[in-house]
Amino acid sequence: MTGLQQQIDFVLELDRLKAVYRQALVKEDNNRQENSAEHSWHIALMAQVLHQYVDEPINIFRVQNMLLIHDIVEIDAGDMFAFSEQQELDAQADKELAAAERIFGLLPESQNQSIKQLWIEFEAAQTPDARFAKAMDRVLPLLQNMHNDGGSWLRYNVKKTQVINRNNHLDGLAPRLWSYVCEQIDIAVENRWLKNE
Amino acid sequence: MTGLQQQIDFVLELDRLKAVYRQALVKEDNNRQENSAEHSWHIALMAQVLHQYVDEPINIFRVQNMLLIHDIVEIDAGDMFAFSEQQELDAQADKELAAAERIFGLLPESQNQSIKQLWIEFEAAQTPDARFAKAMDRVLPLLQNMHNDGGSWLRYNVKKTQVINRNNHLDGLAPRLWSYVCEQIDIAVENRWLKNE
Repeated sequence: MTGLQQQIDFVLELDRLKAVYRQALVKEDNNRQENSAEHSWHIALMAQVLHQYVDEPINIFRVQNMLLIHDIVEIDAGDMFAFSEQQELDAQADKELAAAERIFGLLPESQNQSIKQLWIEFEAAQTPDARFAKAMDRVLPLLQNMHNDGGSWLRYNVKKTQVINRNNHLDGLAPRLWSYVCEQIDIAVENRWLKNE
Repeated sequence: MTGLQQQIDFVLELDRLKAVYRQALVKEDNNRQENSAEHSWHIALMAQVLHQYVDEPINIFRVQNMLLIHDIVEIDAGDMFAFSEQQELDAQADKELAAAERIFGLLPESQNQSIKQLWIEFEAAQTPDARFAKAMDRVLPLLQNMHNDGGSWLRYNVKKTQVINRNNHLDGLAPRLWSYVCEQIDIAVENRWLKNE
């Protein structure tokens, strides 16, 4: 098989991410569940719009590509709700690693390696690029829930501390965004969209 | 209103692109119609995977951002089937320009100008970046239809010459991709997925 045919097979495989549905709701489409493909588009674009607020040097091109690829492993592993139990999250990580091997492995070897490294960097969330990418992945559901009278938070009785812990990649990285997020969380608690715990 | 609040309002407005449905079908999700948000994700990633085949100097970062933003105007203007009549396509262009003014205008002025310029460059399809971006937007439906026994081509009795004319941005720009596309079109005609006209 030629390298081009491998690349096209990979591109066609990506279609399956449009069938992976998340807990987030699309308010503007009758509150149907959001899929991971359109979510990835949204955060890649959001990163472009908001990257001026990051205080550390980042490469927005790398950040956007992390965000475009970060959920591809869900084609095999499925989506897991952000506030699941730790044991479930650990099992999910194993499934995602196997998925990365299979799906990125459809590509020619040099592309396979570079995309896998980018995904591993995103998951580890240690570099400024990966921390900002993680933050975008997590802030968007907060904005969507705020815009949707609590959205998926209400359905799952999510606590304030859970949302703070999930978004604190921004703390120190993008202070202006972090303070905005903290203000939004306070409003959510006042409105009883988040439990005050 | 602060610049940040304008940017967040823009990000939330983007949610509406998830409710704009195209003629393309998602085979892997029971052949439901594809929306323009997930389509934009798919082609931005496809551009990254295939840009090695472009023979002219391009800036893949610009190409990917063109693709992430190129359909936002459909929030107001709706999607128009690729093979519509010229008169309808002209009317659509006017609607899209008004949509660009309104939606990009939600952003702070400097971002508004730069995103609008990027969109205008995409639409004009004259620079290598824009030609490659246009090509990705058009090749993906071809790959999807080939993978789906003719898909939306069959439903609308699309002709071979229409598909060739629509994809010829690749001719001269990315010869290896262009020859692949021409081979696929021949197969589609043999299989009666495209009319031989």
